[in-house]
Amino acid sequence: MDAEFPHSLALPHLAKLHAYTPGLQPTEAGWTKLNTNECAYAPSPRVAAALLGEIGEEGDSLRRYPNPSSNPLRAALAAHHQLQPANVCVGNGSDDILNLLMRCFCAPGPGTGFTFPSYSLYPVLVGIQDGAAAVIEFDRSMQLPLDKISNSSARIFFLTSPNAPTGVAFANSEIAQILSRFSGILVVDEAYAPFAKENAISLLANHPRLVVVRTFSKAYALAGIRVGYALGHPDLIGLLDRVRDSYNVNRLSQVAALAALEDQGYYSDLIQRICRTRDHYQNLWRESGWFTYQSEANFIFTEPCNARGESGPVVAKSAYEYLSRHRVLVRYFPSHALTASFLRISVGTDDEMTVLQNTLEAWLKHA
Amino acid sequence: MDAEFPHSLALPHLAKLHAYTPGLQPTEAGWTKLNTNECAYAPSPRVAAALLGEIGEEGDSLRRYPNPSSNPLRAALAAHHQLQPANVCVGNGSDDILNLLMRCFCAPGPGTGFTFPSYSLYPVLVGIQDGAAAVIEFDRSMQLPLDKISNSSARIFFLTSPNAPTGVAFANSEIAQILSRFSGILVVDEAYAPFAKENAISLLANHPRLVVVRTFSKAYALAGIRVGYALGHPDLIGLLDRVRDSYNVNRLSQVAALAALEDQGYYSDLIQRICRTRDHYQNLWRESGWFTYQSEANFIFTEPCNARGESGPVVAKSAYEYLSRHRVLVRYFPSHALTASFLRISVGTDDEMTVLQNTLEAWLKHA
Repeated sequence: MDAEFPHSLALPHLAKLHAYTPGLQPTEAGWTKLNTNECAYAPSPRVAAALLGEIGEEGDSLRRYPNPSSNPLRAALAAHHQLQPANVCVGNGSDDILNLLMRCFCAPGPGTGFTFPSYSLYPVLVGIQDGAAAVIEFDRSMQLPLDKISNSSARIFFLTSPNAPTGVAFANSEIAQILSRFSGILVVDEAYAPFAKENAISLLANHPRLVVVRTFSKAYALAGIRVGYALGHPDLIGLLDRVRDSYNVNRLSQVAALAALEDQGYYSDLIQRICRTRDHYQNLWRESGWFTYQSEANFIFTEPCNARGESGPVVAKSAYEYLSRHRVLVRYFPSHALTASFLRISVGTDDEMTVLQNTLEAWLKHA
Repeated sequence: MDAEFPHSLALPHLAKLHAYTPGLQPTEAGWTKLNTNECAYAPSPRVAAALLGEIGEEGDSLRRYPNPSSNPLRAALAAHHQLQPANVCVGNGSDDILNLLMRCFCAPGPGTGFTFPSYSLYPVLVGIQDGAAAVIEFDRSMQLPLDKISNSSARIFFLTSPNAPTGVAFANSEIAQILSRFSGILVVDEAYAPFAKENAISLLANHPRLVVVRTFSKAYALAGIRVGYALGHPDLIGLLDRVRDSYNVNRLSQVAALAALEDQGYYSDLIQRICRTRDHYQNLWRESGWFTYQSEANFIFTEPCNARGESGPVVAKSAYEYLSRHRVLVRYFPSHALTASFLRISVGTDDEMTVLQNTLEAWLKHA
């Protein structure tokens, strides 16, 4: 295979694409992994039980295609959110849903908006569509730039709430204000909403241009099975269904998500525990003088200070590298002034957070 | 949610899309299901064992994201096909791979080719890209239209071999001829190649514009887990990797596919058994005067004759409907003269084929 590949055959805009960079997934043991906002605790035991039931002795059911529309899961999600099945589209992770939304509403050229910072997948997906992103920047307050979003001429706007990587949540009153003035589709990407005080689902009833996107990767502790979903107007859901792969969610993932959804008691305890841990460390770091956004997610965005009380990109980088050298993985976004002084730290178990805190204290002695 | 959805916001070409129609997947028991070319036999017992190992007692690993590039599976596939990992991209079913190829090479307007009949997903995927398909029709001989494909100005051409729904396979000598003259990307969609005498993988070494697409849905008896893959030039694989979802294949599917791949002995026996059943019924129907293409797949495309020796769309429809009424599902494609006189029948177990044959004989007495 030494012959040259004729790049001129590929669509020209692909040449300028930058692929999404997922967080590191070390395969060896011994890491304290607080870098990809996975859930600190195992999923409901009903998930493993349901999977074993589906697999059976011989895995015979696996030779059959899955339900093409994930109908049992769709119906259960609709009931859970007090909506109709026609309001729900299930995807191979919420990334699949975001991708489908782009394919329905993001044309080449301008017309697709999102904030900076927010989920760094959006610009990648816009690039695949040969779109040009209209990016609205937060300032350091991380207050929602209501006027700028409302006045945007975008055909579709992606708002992450609670936001990543800051953890800051936006109120329904603000989202409703945007919806009353902005004329495009507003996607509220609620990957972290189960950890927040409020969510936008109640706004769906009166706002046909609102789409809410959810995932099983965070609060349901099922990042490994790739299930996400969109909630929205039946006509919008119909568009997503026309564009998605006909068997986009495999048999085991449908079964696992359904079992998780049916164990709300388990997850309600788990979410409370994560929020308690989050609030404890958020307060601890604030008390030690670290500027820390009010998180309503399962991670904390904090601006570390060294022993001399200095913060900034050099300090954040030093903390990040010290943690990495000591096998504690957090996420660091050095490429922008709004993020370069911060670390994004997923909320772990008590033991993991103790390892983190001890390592940070050791860093403080060296920094 | 009674407010109207503003359809004008969606990309205009979506309005004319026709979604892919998957074969019926009845949920109740009692059907003899020979309509979607699933494998008649269970997957390797190693698959269930590997899945149970991954799930463990509590399903704890499921809270972690999967390997974003399916690297262990990629490496195993490369070794299996005597290629390098850089020659392999793993997808959420081969439909995901076909979709990625469209996103890399199918621009709005003309430029994407395939034959008719072939996999009916291609025109759907072209439509999502706002492309215009250049369709090259077979004639009833189902001989490959070598000159027409070779002279096509398509940027990318999809060739299903063995073809669906006919089961007819194309020789490497013919594919090599096309590659020497056609200037675009040639995708050989080999979903059914494990049931065929020959496959195109050996041609990859000298043809950077060739892509071979495979699936675990048919010969590996794993349609339920959605794993497919592309084999091709590293630069082409690099393009697919830039466009695919970063966690496109979930944790359990990666584990299942890897376990299946490692049990070639099991699958070699299984494929032989399916081919024996196929050849038996193919011969039986030919002997009873039904025109039947030479199948190198796990299904048979046959033109039924009624008791008076008549064939044609009316006869095929009558057989299809009689079978359906008696809970035997096969596939019928009434919309084109090349297919409307035929039934596509997946090769089942001996028992399933006996039910089919008895039902066909009962139909003959009524037809």
